[in-house]
Amino acid sequence: MNLTPYHHGNLRTALVEQGLVLLEASDQADLSLRELARRVGVSANAAYRHFANKDALLAALAAEGFRRFNVTQIRAATGEVDQASSFRQAGRAYVQFAQDNPALFRLMFGRSTAKEETEELKQASQASFETLKMAVAQLAGLPIDDPQVTVKAMIAWSLVHGLSHLALDGRLDHLGEGANAVIDQIISHLDKP
Amino acid sequence: MNLTPYHHGNLRTALVEQGLVLLEASDQADLSLRELARRVGVSANAAYRHFANKDALLAALAAEGFRRFNVTQIRAATGEVDQASSFRQAGRAYVQFAQDNPALFRLMFGRSTAKEETEELKQASQASFETLKMAVAQLAGLPIDDPQVTVKAMIAWSLVHGLSHLALDGRLDHLGEGANAVIDQIISHLDKP
Repeated sequence: MNLTPYHHGNLRTALVEQGLVLLEASDQADLSLRELARRVGVSANAAYRHFANKDALLAALAAEGFRRFNVTQIRAATGEVDQASSFRQAGRAYVQFAQDNPALFRLMFGRSTAKEETEELKQASQASFETLKMAVAQLAGLPIDDPQVTVKAMIAWSLVHGLSHLALDGRLDHLGEGANAVIDQIISHLDKP
Repeated sequence: MNLTPYHHGNLRTALVEQGLVLLEASDQADLSLRELARRVGVSANAAYRHFANKDALLAALAAEGFRRFNVTQIRAATGEVDQASSFRQAGRAYVQFAQDNPALFRLMFGRSTAKEETEELKQASQASFETLKMAVAQLAGLPIDDPQVTVKAMIAWSLVHGLSHLALDGRLDHLGEGANAVIDQIISHLDKP
């Protein structure tokens, strides 16, 4: 009988879960596998059996980030009266996700992650882009493999991605309480043809 | 007669000039005032007379970045046949500036700069935003102080800023040679009402 808190099969999940907490609390540069193992209550060796190094851990955190992000995107778009409203809600959810998880957002979309791209991370980030393309295709009444769908998806992505960075980097701070209203007005541009 | 390479009045300029080179060659974190002084051929003390610390140097580099950026924006918009073309050219120049000066771009718009904002930096970044608002006002036929001008300017800014980050972070790499064509198609969205 195994009385340790983590048995074979869920230590990886526990390390990712705690890793996401540590990432937001400290900084990508300060995150260490040893410290993570200590917090989860296992030996460093046990942690290294799941992640060969810090880059592998960061890739796993980014992949889990994309899976959670994708869920918020799909949830945001559900229950709206029409496709344009759904699309705007997903746009708002994108900016909100960045504001709620700044370190994770930077990790997911940052250059360092792109370099160490694992198969798991590639699949998770592609799934997010497919969700976006599907929404664009429905909104525009085009088949998903139409090249215009990719362009329109990139336009929407650039807009919410830029807005997220401007918000995270304090470029909307001068708007004070009015920042959210301006974000809403910018997002409302998303369903323009 | 003064035979040293830098006399009173241009050492600051020389430090900023060489600082911009070092910034792109290394990394914001590795940039040091001592190393910069060594490269310019002056004592560390001489450099400290112009910049009290590294943050002051980074603020000066960001401010010079905004001045150069503003020149490229104004130049890009000049000589086009109509205001919509001028606006698109300025958009292309924005993304190109980010690609040509990735470290400077991140420094200019990054959170760390926003925190240490000097008067010089504030004025230089505000001048860039005023240039953008003027172009938007002309394109939309609205007075520059119309609140819609700020919103439209933020939409254009978000779009090119997001596109710049996606390009810098390798998110357009999968498009290969086609990346510039897609950037152009995204930019062409800029003059939509």
